[in-house]
Amino acid sequence: MTDSTATPPDPIAAKLTFARGRDYWTTQAAPEIGLRALRFADGPHGLRVQDDENPDHLGLERSAPATCFPPAVTLASSWDAALIEEVGAALGREARAAGVDVVLGPGLNLKRSPLCGRNFEYYSEDPMLSGLLAGASARGIQSVGVGACLKHFAANSQEGDRNRISADIDERSLRELYLRNFQLALEASGAWSIMTSYNRINGLHASQDPWLLTQVLREEWGFDGLVISDWGGVYDPVAALKAGMDLRMPGGALDDRLIAAHARGEIAEGDLDRVIANTTRLAERTRPRDTDVPPDVEAHHALVRRAAAESSVLLKNDGVLPLDPARYPKVAILGELARTPRIQGSGSSRVHPRRVVAPLDVLRERLAQSGAQVAFAPAYGLQNGPADAALITEALQVARDADIVLLFSGLTDAAEAEGSDRTHIDLPDQQLTLLAALADCDTPLVVSLANGAVVRSTQWRDTAQAIVEFWLSGQAHGETVADVLLGDVPPAGRLAQTIPRRLQDTPAFLDFPGEHRHVRHSEGLHIGYRWYDARDLAVDYPFGHGLSYTSFDYEELEIDVRASDDDIAFVARLTLRNSGARAGSEVVQLYASDPSTAYQTPPRELRGWQKVHLEAGESCAVSIPVKRAHLGHWHSGLKRWVFAGGPMTLHVGASSRDLRLTCETELHGEALPVVLTPWSLFGEWMQHPVMGPRIEALFASRGGVKGRAGDLLSDPAGRNTVYINPLAMLAQFPGVPLDQSDLETLCAEAAALA
Amino acid sequence: MTDSTATPPDPIAAKLTFARGRDYWTTQAAPEIGLRALRFADGPHGLRVQDDENPDHLGLERSAPATCFPPAVTLASSWDAALIEEVGAALGREARAAGVDVVLGPGLNLKRSPLCGRNFEYYSEDPMLSGLLAGASARGIQSVGVGACLKHFAANSQEGDRNRISADIDERSLRELYLRNFQLALEASGAWSIMTSYNRINGLHASQDPWLLTQVLREEWGFDGLVISDWGGVYDPVAALKAGMDLRMPGGALDDRLIAAHARGEIAEGDLDRVIANTTRLAERTRPRDTDVPPDVEAHHALVRRAAAESSVLLKNDGVLPLDPARYPKVAILGELARTPRIQGSGSSRVHPRRVVAPLDVLRERLAQSGAQVAFAPAYGLQNGPADAALITEALQVARDADIVLLFSGLTDAAEAEGSDRTHIDLPDQQLTLLAALADCDTPLVVSLANGAVVRSTQWRDTAQAIVEFWLSGQAHGETVADVLLGDVPPAGRLAQTIPRRLQDTPAFLDFPGEHRHVRHSEGLHIGYRWYDARDLAVDYPFGHGLSYTSFDYEELEIDVRASDDDIAFVARLTLRNSGARAGSEVVQLYASDPSTAYQTPPRELRGWQKVHLEAGESCAVSIPVKRAHLGHWHSGLKRWVFAGGPMTLHVGASSRDLRLTCETELHGEALPVVLTPWSLFGEWMQHPVMGPRIEALFASRGGVKGRAGDLLSDPAGRNTVYINPLAMLAQFPGVPLDQSDLETLCAEAAALA
Repeated sequence: MTDSTATPPDPIAAKLTFARGRDYWTTQAAPEIGLRALRFADGPHGLRVQDDENPDHLGLERSAPATCFPPAVTLASSWDAALIEEVGAALGREARAAGVDVVLGPGLNLKRSPLCGRNFEYYSEDPMLSGLLAGASARGIQSVGVGACLKHFAANSQEGDRNRISADIDERSLRELYLRNFQLALEASGAWSIMTSYNRINGLHASQDPWLLTQVLREEWGFDGLVISDWGGVYDPVAALKAGMDLRMPGGALDDRLIAAHARGEIAEGDLDRVIANTTRLAERTRPRDTDVPPDVEAHHALVRRAAAESSVLLKNDGVLPLDPARYPKVAILGELARTPRIQGSGSSRVHPRRVVAPLDVLRERLAQSGAQVAFAPAYGLQNGPADAALITEALQVARDADIVLLFSGLTDAAEAEGSDRTHIDLPDQQLTLLAALADCDTPLVVSLANGAVVRSTQWRDTAQAIVEFWLSGQAHGETVADVLLGDVPPAGRLAQTIPRRLQDTPAFLDFPGEHRHVRHSEGLHIGYRWYDARDLAVDYPFGHGLSYTSFDYEELEIDVRASDDDIAFVARLTLRNSGARAGSEVVQLYASDPSTAYQTPPRELRGWQKVHLEAGESCAVSIPVKRAHLGHWHSGLKRWVFAGGPMTLHVGASSRDLRLTCETELHGEALPVVLTPWSLFGEWMQHPVMGPRIEALFASRGGVKGRAGDLLSDPAGRNTVYINPLAMLAQFPGVPLDQSDLETLCAEAAALA
Repeated sequence: MTDSTATPPDPIAAKLTFARGRDYWTTQAAPEIGLRALRFADGPHGLRVQDDENPDHLGLERSAPATCFPPAVTLASSWDAALIEEVGAALGREARAAGVDVVLGPGLNLKRSPLCGRNFEYYSEDPMLSGLLAGASARGIQSVGVGACLKHFAANSQEGDRNRISADIDERSLRELYLRNFQLALEASGAWSIMTSYNRINGLHASQDPWLLTQVLREEWGFDGLVISDWGGVYDPVAALKAGMDLRMPGGALDDRLIAAHARGEIAEGDLDRVIANTTRLAERTRPRDTDVPPDVEAHHALVRRAAAESSVLLKNDGVLPLDPARYPKVAILGELARTPRIQGSGSSRVHPRRVVAPLDVLRERLAQSGAQVAFAPAYGLQNGPADAALITEALQVARDADIVLLFSGLTDAAEAEGSDRTHIDLPDQQLTLLAALADCDTPLVVSLANGAVVRSTQWRDTAQAIVEFWLSGQAHGETVADVLLGDVPPAGRLAQTIPRRLQDTPAFLDFPGEHRHVRHSEGLHIGYRWYDARDLAVDYPFGHGLSYTSFDYEELEIDVRASDDDIAFVARLTLRNSGARAGSEVVQLYASDPSTAYQTPPRELRGWQKVHLEAGESCAVSIPVKRAHLGHWHSGLKRWVFAGGPMTLHVGASSRDLRLTCETELHGEALPVVLTPWSLFGEWMQHPVMGPRIEALFASRGGVKGRAGDLLSDPAGRNTVYINPLAMLAQFPGVPLDQSDLETLCAEAAALA
C-alpha cells in the first residue's frame, strides 16, 4: 500500500471523471464547483424521456408521452425557417417541462443517397437548406432555455456499418457540403452543443479527429459549446479527449485507459479544464429544471397540424384537387395507412405520441358533413410480403363503385428505419401490385404518400390524377390530410430533395454503402440536384418542386449588387403575383451559376429563397439577399475559401428545373495570387508582367531558344504547345538555354516580387 | 585547387552519368565495360527516326519515311493478338534496319474518357484487352531483337495538364485497372523496357514513385528491364534514381542536383549499379545495329491493308453492304476525307508514311471496273469552322443524283491530337451540318468513319443505312475501305471501347480533366462498359459490338471447372456456327459476373475471348481458358489479391450487350481469414466456432446481459440489431458485462486461435 498522505494532490486525476457522463442520460454533477447534472433526451421531433428507473438506449415503450411533431424530412419541405423555429420552441417547452436540459437534435446530415435509413431525421440534400433550417430548429429550442445538439457531426450519410465506415471525401466536398450544413446551422443558431457521428472521415473517427473537432469546429468556426459523443461512439477515450471531445456518452465508470494514460503523463490538464469549462457554460446557458409549467398540448397539436400542411408537397394535380365532394359524391378510401397511419420514423428518435389522428376517421367525418359517401378498403398490409389477392379484389371493387379514389400509400416501419439502409426506392410490393391493378380502373385516383425517405413514382405516376407527398406528418396526420385534400389549407411544401426516376441514376449508386469499411464519396460536390443537373438526367420530380392550388407569376427580376466590402454580395428583387383563383404559398428559389475558371462548380446551386403567402390576385415584392460568404468555394489548391467573383448567372424559379427569370450579373471577388514555381507553366511565367520580359531578355542574352522549341516559339500557333509545359520540363530539352540554377534564380526573383 | 592525386577514386561519381541519356535519342556508351550506345525512336505504329543532325522531340518533317501501320485504337478493334504480334514484328524489322534498338511503344493506357487527346495511341477501356494486345505488340517487336517500351506507366489518361496532374485513384481501381494492363502486358511479352508517365499518381510523380517503380514493378511483378522516363518527365533526378528510375531522357549534361546529392553522401552506389546492370541487360537483349537488311516494304503495306480490314467495325448495316455495284450503278462519294484521308493521329507518334492511299482513288478505279459511275464532292473542309453552304449544296446535288452515297466522315487533325483533350464527342460541325442536310435526301447512305477517338452518332445514325468505323487505318486506308465496302474482305473488328450516347453519360464526365492539378477517378472500378452496365445506361454501340456480313449461332456452352491447384480456373467451351451465306469472322467474348460478398464487382467483366474465321455454313469448337489469376480482385481490406470463388455466372456473346449463352458455375477460391478485433461486429464474434461459445459462457458467468441489450438478445428479431454493433461499442452500454480488459483478453484469445 502506498501512503496516500505522502502523495501530493493530483488535480488531473480529480478532473478525469468529467470526460464521461454519469449514467445513460445525465452528466456528472459537481456541487463543489456549482455544477449540476445535465439531462439529455432524444427527440428532434418530439421528446423521448425515459423512465429513470429503466434507462437504456433503445427503449421506447417506457418513454413518457410527448407531442409527436413532424420530423425533419417533413419540416424541411416547408422551406420555412420561422415555422421550424416555432416548432423548435414548442419542443423546447416540452423539454423544459420534463426537466430536460438538452434535446439531442436537430439532425442535419445531408441526404447523400435516398437509401439511407435515417433520411427521415434529416432535412435536405442541399447544405444551405439543411443548415439554415436546422439552425432555425436549434434557435427555437434554445429560445426557451433548453440546449439544442446539432448532430451527427459529420458526414454520417448512411446506416450501413455506421460505426466503422469511413466516409472518404475530398476536402472540397467535405467543406462545401458535409461541414457547411453544420457551419451554417451554428451561425444561424449559436447552438450550445454538437454531437459527433459514429462514422470515420477519411479513416479517422469523427469522435477522435482533432482536425474536425478542434481546428475546424473551435478554431475556424469559433464554437464555444459542448462536444458530445454519440452514444457508444468513442473507441479511444484518450484520443477523443485530446482531439477535442468533451463528453463521452453514455456515462459510466472512469475508463482504465484514461487512468493509464494519465499515469504515463499523457493527459494534459488543459484538455480537462476545457471539458469542465464547456460543461459549465452549457449548465449556465440552460435554465434549471422547471417541471411546473405544463406545455399547452392543444396548442402544440394545432402547430403540428399547421406545420405538416405547410410541408405537404403537391407533386401532381390534373385538376382533381382540392377535392370537391359535390363533384365526387362517392369517395373510396383505400389503404391500411389511412386507418393505421405512419406519423414518424423508427429508431432512437421515436416518440410516444400523445395522440394519433388517422386520415380515415377525419375524412369520414368531414366528407359525411359534405354529404359524400365514403367506402373503405385496407387494400394491403403493413408487413413485408406478397400482395393479398382478396384485399386487392376488394379494393378494386370499392374503387370501381366510387367517383374518386383516395389511396393512402407509403413506407411502413418494415420498409425504413434507423439502423439499416433501404435497398430500393420503390413502394412496398403489395402497394405496387395494388397500383398496377388500379391502372385498369377508370375512377380518378388521388395518391397521398406517407414516407420518410423518397419513393419513386415512375411506374405508376400516370395512373394517378394527383399525388400529394405528406412525408411523416406527426400526430395530427389525419387532420392535415383532410385540410389539404379538401382545400381548407393549401399544400405549401416544396421538395427539399430530388425524387429520382431510378436508383441507378442516383449520385452515390455505385458507392453506397461502400465496402471494407470505406465508402467513397465518388460524386464529390455533385450531391442531389447538382448531380442530376450536371449529368442532365431526367427525374421524377426535381428539387424545389411543389404545385399549388393557384398559380404564380414571376416578374421584373433585378439584381442589386453591393459594394465589395459589404457582407451582402447582392440582393435579388422581383415581384411575385398570385395569378390564380385561390390563396396559396410559393417558395421563390434563387439559384446561381458560377462560370468562374478559378474552380469548377455545379451547374446551379441554391443561394437563397423566400416563402410567400398570397391571396388570389395579390402580388408582393420579394427580396432575397445573398451573403458573400455563401458564394465562396473551397479552393483545393490554396486550401481556403475563395470567392473569385466575376460574371454570374442568377435564376429565380419555382423549382430547380422551373426557372422563371434569369439575370446575368458581375460580382466583386478576390483576385487570386499568382505564385510562380518551377512547376508553373511556361505560359504562366511569360504572362507575368515582370518575369515574362525577364525570361525574354535572358533567352536573348544567350542567343535565343534553339531547336524545335525555338521553331515553335517563333510561330504563333506553335507557341501554345510550348506554353503548356512547366518551366522545369522545358528546361530539360535541348536548345532551351535554362539550367537548374536559372530556375532557382527565376523562382527567387518571382517570390521577391510577390 | 585540390590536389587530385590525393583524392581516392570515386566509384559513384564515375557512374552518375549513366542515370541520364547522352543526347536526345541515345544512351551513354561505355566501351570500357563493353556497353554500346542504345538508340530509341518514337513510333508504336511506325518508326519515327529523325535526322541525327537535327534531333528534337517534336520534329516530324525531318523524320525518315516508314511504313505507317494502323495505330493502337485500330488494331485493338481486331481483338487479334496474333495479328498484332505480326504487325509488331514488321515494325521491329523496320527499326532494326534503321539501327533503332528500342521502339518507344506500345502505349496501353486505358481510355478513361473518350475526350483524351491521345486515345488513338491506346487500345481499350478494358485492362485485359489492353494488356494482352499491347503485350502481343511488344512480343512481336522483340521477336526480331528490338526492344519494346511499354508506356506510359501509369494512369496517364488525359493530355490536360499532363505534366502536373495527379491521378487520384483508390488502390483497388489502380491495381485492377490502371496497373493491371501493364501487369498483363509484361506477363505476355516480358518487355525489356517501360516508360514512366508524366503525371502524378495520388500526388507523387510516376517517375519518382518508389512504390510504383520498385515495390510493384520490380518486387511484385519481377520486372528486370530498363525503366525510362518520358522525355522531360523527371523533375527531381535524385528522387527518381532512388525510386527506381534507370534512365532519364532526353540526355544531357550531368545534373548539378545529382552531383550535390552525391557530395552530401545521398547517392547509393547500388542504385547506380542497378542502372548500369539494367542498361547492360537491355544492350545484350537487343541485337547490334544492322542496317543491311532492308524491310520488305510491299509486304508491310499488304499487312497494313489486311490488319486494318481485320480491325474495321461494321456498326450498322440495313442490308446495303457489301456494296453491289449492279444494284447501285451510280455511286456518290462525299467528303474531303475520301480524297485527303486521315490515316494516323497527331503528335509525337506521327510517322512520315511511305505511301498514302486515298479511298476516292481506289473506289473510283474498282467501281469503274464494275461498270458503276462515280461522282465526288468534298462536302466539307478539314479545318475547323462553319459549314460552307456551297459545298453542302453541291454534295446534296451529287447525292440526289446517285443510287447510293458513300460518305467519308471523321475527325480531322484539328479535332484531336496529342497534347490536348477534346471537349465533345461529336463529329466536326461541318460534317454534322452535312449529315443533317442528308437526312432529307432519299438516297441510301453509307458512312465510313476515320477517327482516333470515339464519335457519337446519336443525332444522325438513323439517317445512315450503314456505318463502318475504320478508325485510323494506316497507309493502305483506301484499299482497306474498298476491300470492306465491296465485300472482298469481311469487316472483322469489334469495339474495344463503348460508343456512348452523350458526353454526360460517360463515367468521368464530372471529373475530367480535373482541377488544381488533381483529377479524381471518381468512377473507380467502373471504367467503360463497367459503368454503362452498372448504371444501366443506353449507349450508341456497346463494348464488343461489331456486325458481320454473315450471322453466327452460339451453341452448347459448357464450363470445364479445373482443380483448385490448376492455374486455369475453368475453360468455357461452345460451338460457333456461321449460319449465314458468307464467310466472316466472329469474336466470341466471355464475360463473368461475380456475385461474391467478399468484394463488390461490376455487373460483368471481360475474362477472355477467341476470334474465329468461318466459311458460310461452317462451325467449329471454341475454347476459352480463364486463368485463376485473372479472376481475382484487389481486396482493399486485406491489401492483396483475392479470388474468393463460389458461384459465378458466365456469359458468352457477340458483344457486352449481346450475350447469347449464360451458364452458372461454382469455382474454387480462397477462404478469407476471419480476424477478430474490438472493431469486429458482435455478430462476427458470435459466429466464431470458439469465441462465440466463449462469450456466451462469459456472459452467463456474470449473470447475463441486462437492460435493453439483454431484451434484444433474447428476441430472435431484436438480436440482429445488436449483432451489427462492434464489440467495443456494445461494451460501452449499461447492462453488457464486458470491460476494456475483457476486450483485450478476448482479442488475444482469438488471435491465438488464428
